[in-house]
Amino acid sequence: MEGPILDKRSPAVLLDHGSGGRASRRLVEELLLPHLKNDLLDRMDDAAVLQAGGARLAFTTDSYVVDPIFFPGGDIGMLAVHGTINDLAMAGARPVALSAGLILEEGLPLADLERIVASMAKAAANAGVPIATGDTKVVARGAADKIFINTAGIGLVPDGVDVSGHHGRAGDCVILSGPIAEHGVAILSTRAGLSFASSCRSDSAPLAGLVADMLAACPSIHSLRDPTRGGLAATLNELASQSHVRIDIDETAIPVSEAAASACEILGIDPLHLANEGVLVALVPEPGAVAVVDTMRAHPYGRQARIIGRVLEGEPIVVMKTVIGGKRIVSVPSGQPLPRIC
Amino acid sequence: MEGPILDKRSPAVLLDHGSGGRASRRLVEELLLPHLKNDLLDRMDDAAVLQAGGARLAFTTDSYVVDPIFFPGGDIGMLAVHGTINDLAMAGARPVALSAGLILEEGLPLADLERIVASMAKAAANAGVPIATGDTKVVARGAADKIFINTAGIGLVPDGVDVSGHHGRAGDCVILSGPIAEHGVAILSTRAGLSFASSCRSDSAPLAGLVADMLAACPSIHSLRDPTRGGLAATLNELASQSHVRIDIDETAIPVSEAAASACEILGIDPLHLANEGVLVALVPEPGAVAVVDTMRAHPYGRQARIIGRVLEGEPIVVMKTVIGGKRIVSVPSGQPLPRIC
Repeated sequence: MEGPILDKRSPAVLLDHGSGGRASRRLVEELLLPHLKNDLLDRMDDAAVLQAGGARLAFTTDSYVVDPIFFPGGDIGMLAVHGTINDLAMAGARPVALSAGLILEEGLPLADLERIVASMAKAAANAGVPIATGDTKVVARGAADKIFINTAGIGLVPDGVDVSGHHGRAGDCVILSGPIAEHGVAILSTRAGLSFASSCRSDSAPLAGLVADMLAACPSIHSLRDPTRGGLAATLNELASQSHVRIDIDETAIPVSEAAASACEILGIDPLHLANEGVLVALVPEPGAVAVVDTMRAHPYGRQARIIGRVLEGEPIVVMKTVIGGKRIVSVPSGQPLPRIC
Repeated sequence: MEGPILDKRSPAVLLDHGSGGRASRRLVEELLLPHLKNDLLDRMDDAAVLQAGGARLAFTTDSYVVDPIFFPGGDIGMLAVHGTINDLAMAGARPVALSAGLILEEGLPLADLERIVASMAKAAANAGVPIATGDTKVVARGAADKIFINTAGIGLVPDGVDVSGHHGRAGDCVILSGPIAEHGVAILSTRAGLSFASSCRSDSAPLAGLVADMLAACPSIHSLRDPTRGGLAATLNELASQSHVRIDIDETAIPVSEAAASACEILGIDPLHLANEGVLVALVPEPGAVAVVDTMRAHPYGRQARIIGRVLEGEPIVVMKTVIGGKRIVSVPSGQPLPRIC
C-alpha cells in the first residue's frame, strides 16, 4: 500500500477523524485530497463554485449521522436540510434544490422514518428549497445506526458575489450572527441525560435568507462560514489559515447563553469547540460592517449579531482577549472526539 | 402517528424495502413521496431536470452500501462514481461534477480507505468528471459497516434532448446495451464464496459517453434507464408504468453470459432480477433505432447492443417471449431481498 499513513501506530479510522478538528483535517489533507486533487475541491470552502451552462453554480454535500436522531429543537431530518442550505449560503448562493439520500437500518420504526421525512419536508418548504431527487437504501440490523441522511445541494451565485474562506483581508471585521454552542450542548446533554441543560435547544435554522440580506447590504463580503463541527474555534482557524491572516476576537463580545455556559463548565468543554447549526461568521470589509450588522439584527436569525473581532496581518492564528483581560491562542479542537454531533 | 403504515404487522423498515422491487416502491410511494411531494421528485426519473440561471440542469443522488466493499471487477468507490454518472446520463445529461459524502466506521483500515478513494479518483478522472465537493463523517465501531458513500451529481441537458421514463410510446424499440446480471452475480458469488461464478466481474462502467453518442445518432430518444437494483425486470416495469405502455421482450435476444446464467440457476435467481452497473435500456422511436444500435456497437460499452423488444399499447405490463416459445409476465422482484448489492 503506497501513500501517506496518518499514524503508523494506529493505521485505522479513529472517532477523532470525524470531530471536525485537527485529526479530521489531517485525514482530508493527507489521505483524501492527494488522490482527489482538483481546483474545485482544493479550495475547501463549504461549497464548490463552478460554471455550468452560463450559470455560476454552488454545489455542496453533507452526511448527517447525529445521535440521538431526535433532540431538543430538532431532528436529523431538519438538520440535514438546514445544514446543506447553509453550506450553499456560505458560498453566497441562493439555494435552488436539494437531494436526499437515506440509509436506513432494518428495524427502524416506520413511524420514526415518517416523522423525520415530514420534518425534512417542512424544513425544505419553510426555506423554499425543493428536495428534487432522492435515494433510499436499507442495511441489515447492526450495519448502521437507525438512519443516516446525506443531502447535497445546488445554488446560484449572484453576479458580483465572490465569497470564500480565502478572501479574508487585514482590516476586515469579524461578525458573529448569534449565541454559540446551543446545538452542541443540546446534543451532548440529551446523550448524557443532563437536566441542568434542559433549556438548551438546537439552533438549527436555514441561513440563506439572512445571507441574502447581508449581501444586499454589502455585496463585497469577503468570507462566510457556519461554525458546525469543531465550533467557532475550528471555523476561525480555518479562515485564518485559508486567508493567511491573524484573527483577533474578544471573548466578552461572544454571546453564550447561561444554560450553555454552565453545561460547558460542568462537561469541561470549551463552548468555542461546540457545534452550531444556525450561526454564521462573516469577514466583512470595515466600511460595510456596521451596515451588515444592522441588517442582520433586523432578521430573525441575526438578532444578536455583533462584531466580535478583527482580521490582522500576521501568522494564521486566532487570538482571544479573555474576559479577565488576558490573551490566549484559540486552538483547533484536538483529542476531544465529539462524534455524531451533526 | 398519522399517515400510512405500509404493513401494520411489521411497522418497521425491512431489508426488502431496499431491494429495488415492490417493497422499495411502496416505501417511496406510500411513505416518502406523500411528504416530500413536488413536481421534480414526483417524476421519479433517475435524475431531476430543472432550470437554474438559464441552464437546464440534471441533479441526482445515490448512496452506496455494497457488501463486500471490494469485489471482482470493482469496489464501492468506483461504483459510487459510475453509478451517479450513469444516473445523470439516463437524463440525457452531460455530467459536470460530483459530490462525495463518506461515512466511515471507526476501525476501517486507512489502507482500505485510501484504496477506495484512489479508485473513486481514477473512475472520476477516466470519466472526465471532477469530484468538486465532499464530506467525511466517522461513526463508532458497530454503528456502520466499514464505509458508506453517497455521491450526488449535476449535469447539463443539451438543447433538444428530453429523455424521461414517462416518454415511452407504442412503436418504440427496446434497446439493451449489453449482457445482464454480471454485477449481481459478482457480488452474490463473492458473498457466498461460490467458485463456479469466478469469471463474473462487475460490469461497473460510466455510460455518459455512450449516451452522448446515442443522442448524436438520434436526439429524440424517448427513455433511458440503467437497470441497477431490481434488475432489468424492475426497470422495464418502471418504464411500462411511467409511460402507461406494455413492453414485450424476447428472451432469446437478452445476452446473459454462461457463467452468470449457471450461477443464477444454482442460486435460484432470475437474471432479470439482478443488478447491473454498466448496462442501459433505451426506448427509441422505430425510425432511429437501427442507427442507435449501430452507434452503440461502435462504443466499448455497447458492443453487444441490440433490440430486445417493442413498446405496445396496452396495460402497463412486461411480457417476455421465452426461449421455449411461450409467454410470461415479467414481474417486479418481490420477497427476495438482495440487500446491499450497490
